[in-house]
Amino acid sequence: MKHDTSVPWPNGARCAVMLTFDFDAETLWTSRDERNWNRPGVLSQGRYGAKLGVPKLLEMLSEEGLPATFFVPGWTVENHRDRVDMILKEGHEIGHHSYSHKWVADDPAAEAEEFERGLASLAAAGVAPKGFRSPAGEVSAGLLATQARHGLLYDSSLMDDVSPYRHVLADGSKGPIELPWHWSLDDAPFALFSVASPRPIFPNSNMLEIWKAEFREIYRWGGLFDLVMHPQITGRPSRIALLREMVAFIRTFPSVWFATGAQVAEAWAALEAEGKV
Amino acid sequence: MKHDTSVPWPNGARCAVMLTFDFDAETLWTSRDERNWNRPGVLSQGRYGAKLGVPKLLEMLSEEGLPATFFVPGWTVENHRDRVDMILKEGHEIGHHSYSHKWVADDPAAEAEEFERGLASLAAAGVAPKGFRSPAGEVSAGLLATQARHGLLYDSSLMDDVSPYRHVLADGSKGPIELPWHWSLDDAPFALFSVASPRPIFPNSNMLEIWKAEFREIYRWGGLFDLVMHPQITGRPSRIALLREMVAFIRTFPSVWFATGAQVAEAWAALEAEGKV
Amino acid sequence: MKHDTSVPWPNGARCAVMLTFDFDAETLWTSRDERNWNRPGVLSQGRYGAKLGVPKLLEMLSEEGLPATFFVPGWTVENHRDRVDMILKEGHEIGHHSYSHKWVADDPAAEAEEFERGLASLAAAGVAPKGFRSPAGEVSAGLLATQARHGLLYDSSLMDDVSPYRHVLADGSKGPIELPWHWSLDDAPFALFSVASPRPIFPNSNMLEIWKAEFREIYRWGGLFDLVMHPQITGRPSRIALLREMVAFIRTFPSVWFATGAQVAEAWAALEAEGKV
Amino acid sequence: MKHDTSVPWPNGARCAVMLTFDFDAETLWTSRDERNWNRPGVLSQGRYGAKLGVPKLLEMLSEEGLPATFFVPGWTVENHRDRVDMILKEGHEIGHHSYSHKWVADDPAAEAEEFERGLASLAAAGVAPKGFRSPAGEVSAGLLATQARHGLLYDSSLMDDVSPYRHVLADGSKGPIELPWHWSLDDAPFALFSVASPRPIFPNSNMLEIWKAEFREIYRWGGLFDLVMHPQITGRPSRIALLREMVAFIRTFPSVWFATGAQVAEAWAALEAEGKV
Repeated sequence: MKHDTSVPWPNGARCAVMLTFDFDAETLWTSRDERNWNRPGVLSQGRYGAKLGVPKLLEMLSEEGLPATFFVPGWTVENHRDRVDMILKEGHEIGHHSYSHKWVADDPAAEAEEFERGLASLAAAGVAPKGFRSPAGEVSAGLLATQARHGLLYDSSLMDDVSPYRHVLADGSKGPIELPWHWSLDDAPFALFSVASPRPIFPNSNMLEIWKAEFREIYRWGGLFDLVMHPQITGRPSRIALLREMVAFIRTFPSVWFATGAQVAEAWAALEAEGKV
Repeated sequence: MKHDTSVPWPNGARCAVMLTFDFDAETLWTSRDERNWNRPGVLSQGRYGAKLGVPKLLEMLSEEGLPATFFVPGWTVENHRDRVDMILKEGHEIGHHSYSHKWVADDPAAEAEEFERGLASLAAAGVAPKGFRSPAGEVSAGLLATQARHGLLYDSSLMDDVSPYRHVLADGSKGPIELPWHWSLDDAPFALFSVASPRPIFPNSNMLEIWKAEFREIYRWGGLFDLVMHPQITGRPSRIALLREMVAFIRTFPSVWFATGAQVAEAWAALEAEGKV
Repeated sequence: MKHDTSVPWPNGARCAVMLTFDFDAETLWTSRDERNWNRPGVLSQGRYGAKLGVPKLLEMLSEEGLPATFFVPGWTVENHRDRVDMILKEGHEIGHHSYSHKWVADDPAAEAEEFERGLASLAAAGVAPKGFRSPAGEVSAGLLATQARHGLLYDSSLMDDVSPYRHVLADGSKGPIELPWHWSLDDAPFALFSVASPRPIFPNSNMLEIWKAEFREIYRWGGLFDLVMHPQITGRPSRIALLREMVAFIRTFPSVWFATGAQVAEAWAALEAEGKV
Repeated sequence: MKHDTSVPWPNGARCAVMLTFDFDAETLWTSRDERNWNRPGVLSQGRYGAKLGVPKLLEMLSEEGLPATFFVPGWTVENHRDRVDMILKEGHEIGHHSYSHKWVADDPAAEAEEFERGLASLAAAGVAPKGFRSPAGEVSAGLLATQARHGLLYDSSLMDDVSPYRHVLADGSKGPIELPWHWSLDDAPFALFSVASPRPIFPNSNMLEIWKAEFREIYRWGGLFDLVMHPQITGRPSRIALLREMVAFIRTFPSVWFATGAQVAEAWAALEAEGKV
């Protein structure tokens, strides 16, 4: 049997590549433990993302001529507005990433409030986001309806495919387009360390082997390669070198389309309208 | 001293190889935490197994001309019946894997109920399983008797050998044949990640090194190589490439017998009847 | 500055190598969680050590002509007596490893009872142990005095040196000789997995790199290389291949002395008597 | 866009390298669990740092002609005074590392007391420290003011940069200079194991790959490479070989300045006074 999952991407591309950054800054730490608000040592990992991670990644993206999508919680928009402006000035997409990065999947009302409050912060910074990514991929049953109600084009929180698909809501109406990700294409399982929850820190070659193997096969299948990074992790000196190497690897393949989440979702919506997916 | 553990496999094979898939789908997540029923983000990892994992693995097995055994919980049979039918249509074996993937080793009554309910779901899909694998290898003292009472030919839940052996029940009667496995031949310790219980995600080369080293030696000993995979893990793009590479490696050895669990158990039972094991 | 820690080993050897096996069998699992007595799945990992691990390791040691030391809890002596007899028949040393592998470092009375009960089990099997190793290296302040009271020559539970040294008891009298180990020279941190406490499973090359690097430098320093293995871990097919490779590596170095714990302790005691250490 | 973070180091150096050792000894274990005071097995890992780690590292540093900074808790100063004297005699810097290595970030008063008590222990050993490093990088909001009040020149506890920067206190006055570190440049996440909190133990090549990749890029950026080690970890035989290899790697780069924390902080303060940073 054959099970074809390929997408007829624009301009004959065989594979779409999204470079995405969850720009959580301090919220990565405070959302898990409120006491961290008073721990400058713990917070300093998050601050790195704003202080050095974002500008050094923007420098690298500019050198490489690559578009990216930054998912930013409302708190980070309010407290690192200069970094948000820097991202926008460089022409990248900014997506919605909740207000405070809390995991509220078990509390749909809190999740909706987080959604709306984050939306307001983005609006105050002049951003009308087209896409949303949930913190840590935790999603309540009500989130997709909330997104649809606020007119979001796409979600990028789920892991049940390697190509985009359209959500159908409980009432049968259209929900957002899903742009799926997976933990193995996230930098956090490999390189995020905290003394409260120690995890192994892997060298670049381990991450590159996994990312390259996923890319090779998704390219062969014709899907979406949705890389999930964090300025406080991939913004470290050695990890920027990792991303450069990964980009160079991808560029050895013909017919690859580097795009923002919005570009991918819009292209997919057009294919859907034409009945091609 | 010499300690010979070799099995005189059919047709002069030196080693039997079972490719097995625990097709848990969503139950892998709900069996550990009931709250996950309401968490689409968590469930999406499980759904991947049904949505893409099974069809892409069937495609690969078909290309390679390989038989496989899928152990399927009753819940998954009921909720992903089309995938079960697909597996059967491709000629693979379906084995019993409890009803809801719950770990009930400390509650023999619940375990028996899980067993019977799962059997009923399989029967409704036209499957009379010959073998059983316990979720996560957790087994109560009563399980083997339950299996014998229901006429199952083999169990594949224990780790105390590298060749099949016959269980003897408490009353001295014959129990099922054991087809042993081991955590190092399972994909989950290497490539299953959840934010609630983070584990390292290893690259293919690490898994291949371990699996190849085990294979080389089991082949030398003359035993059973029982690979335990999951459609939601090994069904990921990069991991299908891993399985292809592992199969190509095994095929460089002469006299290897790729077989389903039922075929291995039946061959062993025949050897036992002839007094050869 | 120079800090010389070398030991003038017998026959001009530069480095002593001890291959030791903690033959815990089922007690590795029951000592941490009493419920595991009723979980055949969990116990099956421990049973592997008795069923296959010990005989296959004895086969390998015999092929290589190597002496080894097996530290065995009293429970294992009583319940796997045939394996203990096998070990003795092959000429290896059997050391003391508590009765039930419980961690009783916080309860000196329980520790002493574990010690005495284990000693009785060993005596019943005809073994008068010369050395002791504490389960998981957990030791109470009273243990060394208990060992001295029972006339043990050496302990191998602590990690504060790479050469043997003499313990001095609280009252100023001589305690046992310490034969130190370290977690990085133990197989369990790299290759023991349980679903209750998941740890990464590493390939042979990772363990070999660490063990070789430790060996090279301890050889250069002139100390003791005390390798701590378990039949249920290093007795797995692939890990026996690992040990063979490690032995072959060590044998490329001249002037290495493979010895049991008792031989090392006796040699060190002789050097001490001569004032050479 | 370009984001220049380079520092015009003295004598045209492109990158400053600090080799630092947190000489915790037993306090690494007792600060997390008071019961460990009565567990000689657990303590023996810490004792290794004093008994062998420090002298063997001093031997290596002397062979290589390298300066280092040892951050030492007051308890360790009092209980391993001979090792502190040895370090001073070799000409290395001794910095402040609290009194008992407790994590008191949530209790500013306890933190200040730990600070003052540690300062007194260092004074009794003839040390007036210029720098401080917090245990595990845990810092309360009040710590920087405490440091300023006691006249410390630099802190090395935070992770929000790769170059030094000046702290500004709540009242607008000058705080200490920060010499940042990061978990990926610490030996503990890779090579510290305890049975109470098991972590993977990685081979030298993994650590070297990460450290080399960080060095290459920090060198390119022109920052500070602040390596955080522990005598009980990097003092192990194989890890001293790792450090030798890392030093040899760094020395293949021209214009690298190996310096103590105090030298780096003083150089940076001079650049600040000249308005060059």
